[in-house]
Amino acid sequence: MLPRRCTASAAAGQTGSSDSDLDEFIMRCLSCEEQYDMMDSGTCRECYQEANEAEEELRLEIDDLKSKVSFLTLSSPTLNPSTADIVLVPVDDSDATPIPAHKHVLVSRSPVFNAMLENDMEERRSGTIKISDVSHDTLRAFVNYLYTAEAPLDNQMACNLLVLGEKYQVKHLKTYCEKYLIAKMNWNRAIANYAFAYQYNCKQLRSASLAVILDKMDSLTQNEYYAELVDTNPRLVVEIYETYIGKQLNTAGTF
Amino acid sequence: MLPRRCTASAAAGQTGSSDSDLDEFIMRCLSCEEQYDMMDSGTCRECYQEANEAEEELRLEIDDLKSKVSFLTLSSPTLNPSTADIVLVPVDDSDATPIPAHKHVLVSRSPVFNAMLENDMEERRSGTIKISDVSHDTLRAFVNYLYTAEAPLDNQMACNLLVLGEKYQVKHLKTYCEKYLIAKMNWNRAIANYAFAYQYNCKQLRSASLAVILDKMDSLTQNEYYAELVDTNPRLVVEIYETYIGKQLNTAGTF
Repeated sequence: MLPRRCTASAAAGQTGSSDSDLDEFIMRCLSCEEQYDMMDSGTCRECYQEANEAEEELRLEIDDLKSKVSFLTLSSPTLNPSTADIVLVPVDDSDATPIPAHKHVLVSRSPVFNAMLENDMEERRSGTIKISDVSHDTLRAFVNYLYTAEAPLDNQMACNLLVLGEKYQVKHLKTYCEKYLIAKMNWNRAIANYAFAYQYNCKQLRSASLAVILDKMDSLTQNEYYAELVDTNPRLVVEIYETYIGKQLNTAGTF
Repeated sequence: MLPRRCTASAAAGQTGSSDSDLDEFIMRCLSCEEQYDMMDSGTCRECYQEANEAEEELRLEIDDLKSKVSFLTLSSPTLNPSTADIVLVPVDDSDATPIPAHKHVLVSRSPVFNAMLENDMEERRSGTIKISDVSHDTLRAFVNYLYTAEAPLDNQMACNLLVLGEKYQVKHLKTYCEKYLIAKMNWNRAIANYAFAYQYNCKQLRSASLAVILDKMDSLTQNEYYAELVDTNPRLVVEIYETYIGKQLNTAGTF
């Protein structure tokens, strides 16, 4: 069947086209309500309605999940330490107050704490977990994350927490910090992030850093972290050059 | 500008239309890939692409939230009771094993447990919370829900847990059970659900039950729970009739 509006238009076309004739070929988008012609057509009406329903369902699912997250979030143990049955102590910070926590939470969040507290180890007997190479602030943010899945991040805190996430196998925290570092990536940080990602086994951060480095190879040797990386981990520098040359050869091969 | 394909079609229209001419007025939906004409048009190309991107973002948000829910879910305290610092006991079931739990979790999930355990009340001192009018199975499912935000429901369990959700002000559990009861609503259950919703202050369940009742008013007096409701809560029956008559008058008023 010929569409009704187009039929009218085709007839009008026989006597020469005017502005009002052209209107016959124009549709109005059900979403933005702007006019468009056939060349700019997107979906049929049925798919538009189905997409609307699907979006509504996704939004309902998001509301459900947000409410579940809010329900499952625990209050920070530092707000109410009276029920705590263990403390964490940053051993390099002798003035720091011990951070209260709950064995059940630590065990649920980290396979390392699980092994430590389920077996009859020193930490279980003493009720104290000593953690080295960490400041009081970082350790408090780490413990808090285990209760809330949230942490106030800047670049340094994201790196510090990622290290703890790796050490205690808290994958969710590692991913959380990795995403932050990727979002804040720039040329100045790319080499440092690349070396850091290698050290702490962060696949996505490593590949995001490498992409930024390869995009600006002509400035590589001027990057403030370049000389340091050559000293500390020359193999990683070699890998950058190898990947770059490999890409060049691949691109040349396509012509 | 006249759309290119339509121009060709308008020209073809002058010499009579054939099947191939008609093709000129047909577009192909970018979503389902089926053909459609202008009368069935939905969105422009730009809105289709934007909707696709928006959907992708919603799906990523869902993935993030699901991973957060999974991280925040605690293991059930019955699986590993050694760190529990309180037990819940169903007082009407003398043979039942006490159910282990953690004060910190109870306090985080329920304002009632919070008041009970933060103040120097009997439950805090004894480490035992006695709960009446509940079976061991229901209480175990209740405690488990506080750790996992999940419960295996049937109609009876949904009602039992909703009662505990109301008593201990665990709103998330109440909504969870209410949604289940609404999803499983039918004519046989509508009056019982209506009375139950009234008793436990469930606005959505009450309105969903009432809608089912009003849809089948001619069978109301035959419903197995009708006579019981007239006996136990005649005011609720009056409310059904008042709503029905009110709707009839409103409908009549629109003609």
